[in-house]
Amino acid sequence: MSYEHEISIVSAITLKDIFKCEKIYIFCDAHREFYLIPESEMKSKLFSSGEYRKHPKLQLKNGGFYLKSLLKEKKADYDMVINLIHGGDGEDGKMAALFDFYNISFIGPRLEASVLSFNKLYTKWYANELGIKTLPYELLKRGEYSVNTPFPLIVKPLRLGSSIGVSVVKEESELTYALDMAYEFDDAVLIEPFVEGVKEYNLAGCKGEAFCYSMVEEPQKALFLDFEKKYLDFSRTKQVHEADIDEALKTRLEETFATIYDPLFAGALIRCDFFVVDGEVYLNEINPIPGSYANYLFKDFSGAIEELSYHLPKSRQISVDYTYIHSIQQAKGK
Amino acid sequence: MSYEHEISIVSAITLKDIFKCEKIYIFCDAHREFYLIPESEMKSKLFSSGEYRKHPKLQLKNGGFYLKSLLKEKKADYDMVINLIHGGDGEDGKMAALFDFYNISFIGPRLEASVLSFNKLYTKWYANELGIKTLPYELLKRGEYSVNTPFPLIVKPLRLGSSIGVSVVKEESELTYALDMAYEFDDAVLIEPFVEGVKEYNLAGCKGEAFCYSMVEEPQKALFLDFEKKYLDFSRTKQVHEADIDEALKTRLEETFATIYDPLFAGALIRCDFFVVDGEVYLNEINPIPGSYANYLFKDFSGAIEELSYHLPKSRQISVDYTYIHSIQQAKGK
Repeated sequence: MSYEHEISIVSAITLKDIFKCEKIYIFCDAHREFYLIPESEMKSKLFSSGEYRKHPKLQLKNGGFYLKSLLKEKKADYDMVINLIHGGDGEDGKMAALFDFYNISFIGPRLEASVLSFNKLYTKWYANELGIKTLPYELLKRGEYSVNTPFPLIVKPLRLGSSIGVSVVKEESELTYALDMAYEFDDAVLIEPFVEGVKEYNLAGCKGEAFCYSMVEEPQKALFLDFEKKYLDFSRTKQVHEADIDEALKTRLEETFATIYDPLFAGALIRCDFFVVDGEVYLNEINPIPGSYANYLFKDFSGAIEELSYHLPKSRQISVDYTYIHSIQQAKGK
Repeated sequence: MSYEHEISIVSAITLKDIFKCEKIYIFCDAHREFYLIPESEMKSKLFSSGEYRKHPKLQLKNGGFYLKSLLKEKKADYDMVINLIHGGDGEDGKMAALFDFYNISFIGPRLEASVLSFNKLYTKWYANELGIKTLPYELLKRGEYSVNTPFPLIVKPLRLGSSIGVSVVKEESELTYALDMAYEFDDAVLIEPFVEGVKEYNLAGCKGEAFCYSMVEEPQKALFLDFEKKYLDFSRTKQVHEADIDEALKTRLEETFATIYDPLFAGALIRCDFFVVDGEVYLNEINPIPGSYANYLFKDFSGAIEELSYHLPKSRQISVDYTYIHSIQQAKGK
């Protein structure tokens, strides 16, 4: 149930050849049914044609995904799940909640991390708490069409990833159309100044025993990467434009990344998109499940993921007792 | 999996006689297994003795809770779920995510609302965005023991509801013990000044066609309500101490409540706990699932819940298509 569901499929297919370990594939369709897909059939057509429905359904339950046969259930066999669902369900916290509830070990953002990075306003609060700059903003609600931000400005649906529903608005006359487009995707819209010629740097990473950072990418852009371009972008492997920056800036970006990551994003491999304005680093957004896990930015992607998998956060286990109920029962003389 | 699991049981038993409609009871145990409990057996002993395990298990799936019989499944029959799980799982967003994922209509806080009210720091960010005052604070992480807040101060685990792990610390010598106690429940701790003799007012409400507010309660307190007192408090029905305040303050509290509630808490009946310091209203905390739904504060509790049930927020439905995958397939000449 995500506007980015096709990106998830492309991400999974892209990663098929990148991970050398043994893998199984679980597909969650629009009806929130899970299917076990054989590796040999992991092609986009299987999903777009609806033929995935021929494959066996899985049931999500305590401890894992279960395959139902006539009389008994068999647990799908794997060590760990990688959450590859972009946008709704995957990045908004639902998958994290399901996996956490059912005690499933997974790579991906946890519940709080998902909610704070999925909602662009919450991301700003979070950055602000950490002392990391973000662009000024206005928040509009469905039906609101007047802004105080000077043009050019950028209009973003409050909660989507990717660039779906995002527009750069150069003058007043384009505003209503841009807002209507954004309201198609969310009831609230974030307005930020559009800084012409701003330097953009993307950095991905995760924390195992220590931090593992990707190279710093300077994304190419036509005004800004729209959905279609970003989307096609996900299937790329090599055409990365490594940023030509000095060590000092690289270190500053990495330090800012580490502040953002630790501890909220423990268990995830995330990409932070930064701006640099007048020598100051600004956080633009956090992608807690970047397209194809931003594998193309890493020297040793499989190594980073393996290391991460040994350092997943553990949910707090609570020993459930009945102390107070017993004391009430005693007080009542029962 | 909640430190407040016993409160949930007491809440459910308390509400049994208050809701006059037909009800079924679903119990989620520490293993995250769901059980269907007959109304006649809804007594605390059933749970503390472990005898609830004799009752049939339910499976949470798309559209509802399913009862498994030998050869087929039957859906548990109800119009709507009321989330009555206090603390972990119920108030941290997991239940909201599960119900939302599986298209189950429910009363209770949604995912974002749960995360923002469960984490006391996020609640401050939220109030701040709305222009509502909160007390100043410091955030400590496990292992940190030095504070800048002057004594007396109050130590709270970052994420729990109720008053579990909360202490008032009058002087330096008591600090380490109080922090250690709070760290038992969370890796992060919030420190606030303890304002002696501060006026406290609790207001509950929900929004159906219009807002429905409870009376304003002035909680009695010995220093502050500790867990045991609050807990025993949940089973009360009549001994509410209605606040003796003028219309102007009552209106101000209701307006502040409405600003907090709408639209984030749509679908929930919440209680906001306010302080008034020097004539200014401060938000202390938001209880998105107050003990026994704060029924004792309402003139017509069943009416309020029924009205709320007709105005539950709908999740955005997304029509899943394969436009981009088709266009890639065409571009590849397939």
